Amino acid sequence: MIVVMKEGAKQEEIQAVVQLLQSKGLGVHVSPGEEKTIVGVIGPKERVLELPVESMPGVEKVVQVSNPFKLASRAFHPLDTIVRVGQVEVGGEQPPVIIAGPCSVESLEGILEIARAVKQAGAHMLRGGAFKPRSSPYSFQGLGELGLKYLARAREETGLPVVSEVMEIEALPMMVEYVDVLQIGARNMQNFPLLKAVGKTDKPVLLKRGLSATIEEWLMSAEYILSAGNPNVILCERGIRTFETYTRNTLDLNAVPVVRHLSHLPVIVDPSHGVGKWQYVTAMARAGIAAGAHGLIVEVHQNPAEALSDGQQSLTLENFANMMEEVQAIASAMRAVRATKVPVGK
Amino acid sequence: MIVVMKEGAKQEEIQAVVQLLQSKGLGVHVSPGEEKTIVGVIGPKERVLELPVESMPGVEKVVQVSNPFKLASRAFHPLDTIVRVGQVEVGGEQPPVIIAGPCSVESLEGILEIARAVKQAGAHMLRGGAFKPRSSPYSFQGLGELGLKYLARAREETGLPVVSEVMEIEALPMMVEYVDVLQIGARNMQNFPLLKAVGKTDKPVLLKRGLSATIEEWLMSAEYILSAGNPNVILCERGIRTFETYTRNTLDLNAVPVVRHLSHLPVIVDPSHGVGKWQYVTAMARAGIAAGAHGLIVEVHQNPAEALSDGQQSLTLENFANMMEEVQAIASAMRAVRATKVPVGK
Amino acid sequence: MIVVMKEGAKQEEIQAVVQLLQSKGLGVHVSPGEEKTIVGVIGPKERVLELPVESMPGVEKVVQVSNPFKLASRAFHPLDTIVRVGQVEVGGEQPPVIIAGPCSVESLEGILEIARAVKQAGAHMLRGGAFKPRSSPYSFQGLGELGLKYLARAREETGLPVVSEVMEIEALPMMVEYVDVLQIGARNMQNFPLLKAVGKTDKPVLLKRGLSATIEEWLMSAEYILSAGNPNVILCERGIRTFETYTRNTLDLNAVPVVRHLSHLPVIVDPSHGVGKWQYVTAMARAGIAAGAHGLIVEVHQNPAEALSDGQQSLTLENFANMMEEVQAIASAMRAVRATKVPVGK
Amino acid sequence: MIVVMKEGAKQEEIQAVVQLLQSKGLGVHVSPGEEKTIVGVIGPKERVLELPVESMPGVEKVVQVSNPFKLASRAFHPLDTIVRVGQVEVGGEQPPVIIAGPCSVESLEGILEIARAVKQAGAHMLRGGAFKPRSSPYSFQGLGELGLKYLARAREETGLPVVSEVMEIEALPMMVEYVDVLQIGARNMQNFPLLKAVGKTDKPVLLKRGLSATIEEWLMSAEYILSAGNPNVILCERGIRTFETYTRNTLDLNAVPVVRHLSHLPVIVDPSHGVGKWQYVTAMARAGIAAGAHGLIVEVHQNPAEALSDGQQSLTLENFANMMEEVQAIASAMRAVRATKVPVGK
Repeated sequence: MIVVMKEGAKQEEIQAVVQLLQSKGLGVHVSPGEEKTIVGVIGPKERVLELPVESMPGVEKVVQVSNPFKLASRAFHPLDTIVRVGQVEVGGEQPPVIIAGPCSVESLEGILEIARAVKQAGAHMLRGGAFKPRSSPYSFQGLGELGLKYLARAREETGLPVVSEVMEIEALPMMVEYVDVLQIGARNMQNFPLLKAVGKTDKPVLLKRGLSATIEEWLMSAEYILSAGNPNVILCERGIRTFETYTRNTLDLNAVPVVRHLSHLPVIVDPSHGVGKWQYVTAMARAGIAAGAHGLIVEVHQNPAEALSDGQQSLTLENFANMMEEVQAIASAMRAVRATKVPVGK
Repeated sequence: MIVVMKEGAKQEEIQAVVQLLQSKGLGVHVSPGEEKTIVGVIGPKERVLELPVESMPGVEKVVQVSNPFKLASRAFHPLDTIVRVGQVEVGGEQPPVIIAGPCSVESLEGILEIARAVKQAGAHMLRGGAFKPRSSPYSFQGLGELGLKYLARAREETGLPVVSEVMEIEALPMMVEYVDVLQIGARNMQNFPLLKAVGKTDKPVLLKRGLSATIEEWLMSAEYILSAGNPNVILCERGIRTFETYTRNTLDLNAVPVVRHLSHLPVIVDPSHGVGKWQYVTAMARAGIAAGAHGLIVEVHQNPAEALSDGQQSLTLENFANMMEEVQAIASAMRAVRATKVPVGK
Repeated sequence: MIVVMKEGAKQEEIQAVVQLLQSKGLGVHVSPGEEKTIVGVIGPKERVLELPVESMPGVEKVVQVSNPFKLASRAFHPLDTIVRVGQVEVGGEQPPVIIAGPCSVESLEGILEIARAVKQAGAHMLRGGAFKPRSSPYSFQGLGELGLKYLARAREETGLPVVSEVMEIEALPMMVEYVDVLQIGARNMQNFPLLKAVGKTDKPVLLKRGLSATIEEWLMSAEYILSAGNPNVILCERGIRTFETYTRNTLDLNAVPVVRHLSHLPVIVDPSHGVGKWQYVTAMARAGIAAGAHGLIVEVHQNPAEALSDGQQSLTLENFANMMEEVQAIASAMRAVRATKVPVGK
Repeated sequence: MIVVMKEGAKQEEIQAVVQLLQSKGLGVHVSPGEEKTIVGVIGPKERVLELPVESMPGVEKVVQVSNPFKLASRAFHPLDTIVRVGQVEVGGEQPPVIIAGPCSVESLEGILEIARAVKQAGAHMLRGGAFKPRSSPYSFQGLGELGLKYLARAREETGLPVVSEVMEIEALPMMVEYVDVLQIGARNMQNFPLLKAVGKTDKPVLLKRGLSATIEEWLMSAEYILSAGNPNVILCERGIRTFETYTRNTLDLNAVPVVRHLSHLPVIVDPSHGVGKWQYVTAMARAGIAAGAHGLIVEVHQNPAEALSDGQQSLTLENFANMMEEVQAIASAMRAVRATKVPVGK
């Protein structure tokens, strides 16, 4: 941490800062500059991050030098983490993992039809919501446990592991029985009690980035799960909120190489929520893989115009099969070119 | 709802849309335009809002004509709601209600000292966090139930009702015992199970706007609480996330007159989180009242440089007393000028 | 400037940074931290700001310690600047200055009617566009020189100085003949050749904040004008672009106390563009004054429903007179309370 | 255009709207809904877009149904436009065009070295700034005409057409002599006089998206150039401003498929400004091509640590050669998969 004093800060103001820091057992290093004095602070980052030095007289600003996350950082764990879900491996140099399925589980026939089709097209896991966070209390809120049962049936038939969102701690014991990966939705990215609770399970967690979460905050939320004891976190970029309204969100693919640089955790991309209109999903799926994502999660529906939620961003079964071909072509091309050299900028 | 068809949409595409809508029991009104055909849809808004017409062939876009909220809307409840907390009344033409106190309750002596001082300066309620949502798992997470007990003691001594944040459903029974107003924090604005749960209590709820929530989404979250049976919702604007980094957040005072126009619920302002630096809190408190807010919630600490959280945005006891004077001067001036005429634009 | 080296940066990487800096004649101060080495850089800020140290091996990030603006900073010029326009003084502790008028000058009768009415209601200057930046090439682009002539006529009759936007250097000689204050619109805030050109005139300049300009960038644009020799810059907050779409822009009143803290230049507020709907203009005008703005610029039209531009955000003559009463009540209240004490946080 | 009346709008208010519209020669179609009456408006879009109906009593909101751009729209010009620059073709199904070079031209030797290297690596055009828009008046502003001469020399030697930014109308005659493509920078995207001026030349124009411009506004700026008579516009996505600060901007690749859907104009991507750190440029270059961009513009410098501007986001010559290999692998893979089928969602 660096404390920048104001121009003309008084000697006693500088001393007060130094004394506060020393009283907390931190190392202090004062550099008197031409315009401004700078106080460098050395010590364990957890302690340093919490000091309200900024409110002291004569202080202009405080600059954090360390990343606030530890277990999630590549410095702590230099090799890529590979998360295993049954036979599927997500992360590192594994081929991209594709998770596909409807926004909500709506019926047994529906989920079975979709599961068979996405498996045939090459998907590795099945997604489907049983408990849905909806901005309106009057919207379809999911089938609940029945939806979970249908997902389990689809897994039984196809062998695809299933991913579904958990919205509250109370539902966790039930979810754990049925699903292979617990999804934390964007709206719950900073629901800290829930993060701690999934951190105490042994299920892999798919952690979506919040609508307006910085990359740092997202990694801090991963830190909550990791520090509760669960090392199996898959990050998922799903679009951030910007001023642009033509797309539902702005899929921030920049986050992919950045996260791969800052962290060892796998990172996948959700082009369906990211762009919000099915017409553009395939292009963003290709781009996500090309940016270096470890996989995709994509909404697919056998009849989008009849979907109970998110129909406008769901691919038909046929469009999904097309998307798979394009995505695999990109992934192969990247593997081929990588085989010949050390990658640049990951 | 209005469905705008693409230029050159085929007759059978238009018919398919019409048939889908009619099959749901909705009224339909087709206007063939020069460039584009428009299909007007008439029916109960809950049903209309859920249709994935946008994924149908030939459809360009769907425009919602109605607000999605109902119980929260002024159309449904034309008169201002006044929320009563003990003797205090929030909303309507009542004088602004000032809620003050520390970010976190840290000690009994501390909270008592602050409570006495803010009461003396004219505050109407006491705030203080016992369970704190912190972006880092390594940060101070609040005193828990002990903090609630201290708050209750401060209420006993000063008579000020207390406001504290509830972060999870499990903690709700305990919270209800101690606090007068349940606060839903910005990060939980779309934690729908929690919203439903507080909606089933009989405590007033202070609902903070999410960091990147539109005004409409915020009112929809209020709708969750109202539709669960609790009519006592106080909205709180606390800053949104924008590109500007000089301030911690961007306090969006525009939301104050807009919410007063769209809804009957009281709306207050949190200048402390809104701007994030104590130096600017008083100016934004004045501006909030001048914009028409029904009150303020302000962070105050007896020694900000030693605060365990949010010290940089907390007012000292003395600065708070100064703020109260300025805010009351503005409130009086507004009452005086209003007394002489019908207000413009509320 | 502070250079933060990566964890595990090699000694020769640190040396390379030090040597580069020293070769530019800058003072250098190395602090080896527990995790990361920090290199403090001392020297004239113009030179320091330009170094691409961030691209050097082993460098994690570069943190600017100084503000990049100089002539615009309060450190350089501690007392408030007061800009004089004829008899009108903008800035410092002067009563707020109100600038009112139509978006575009549309006819001589129209501008005269508005000018008389706003003068009577207490406005101090007249605004009106003759050259209009419109996002569509097919929209009304203003009356051009004829509009300037009409403005000059209105000034002759009412004595109100006139403010109008200059969009290009070519038009500057003509503008200078007719107007009292040159407005730089939000879209041109970083049109640097234009900033330099108005900096060479002796007319006061009203510099609007760009739609997505940080406060720092805005002050840097003022620096362009100041450094070209023109000290008479009035800053104008007019709303920034955020995700919220209910309002046209998000008027960022937080910028008012921040600018008053960082700079000596006067800062006024444009609630009309800031919120974009006339219903909310009065509330935001009040809030702007309460936040400490040195004035307002407000769109007024004798018949908004017939306006050729921005009708939806224009006040009628009657609503403007009401707004003036409310704003003056707030300004008086602030003066009264200030008279009794030293202001807090300005 | 659709006018949505308020709930309970009076019959005379509806009539007033209808009469205003009819008085402008527009067709009007009234649909009385259950809650709200809707007035559909039919007529030439230029006229419809300009009506301030929103300020009329009883009107809730106005919804635009048509895109405001015409010449830039795919409806107007269904086939892809291919812009020719010497031998190079940009757009349609042509292989991606790579434009590379330094942020600023700094010396003759420098630009020659870079030009040779990028040509050898497979680049198709050379970029380099001679007049630089810098947020600080104290920053290096470019070599001016000398820089243009150096660019011309580099073209002479390598045969690469050159791209350089024009910042003001005055400089246009000189620019036109030296450069092959006129670049309009992000800060000037809404400098309408400049857009009109380049629209009157016969040089292709590279139009960068503004920092906070919606896709619609960007296409409207293209419309300015097209409607002035110049059909050769290449759009360039270069990152938008969001709340995320880890990256310099947020490269919005979603815009690529959207623009290809809405418009016939070619669209390329600038990953250097888009992400702002050289480490991530290659990943975003790959992603841009995979998203369907018609090309890239990339900053390359022979010694980024000594660059006079943007060193931190410039690739070295070697890294650029690596990037080219990766990008070409992706482009080939896409062509191969496309050859076998009709593309989905473009």
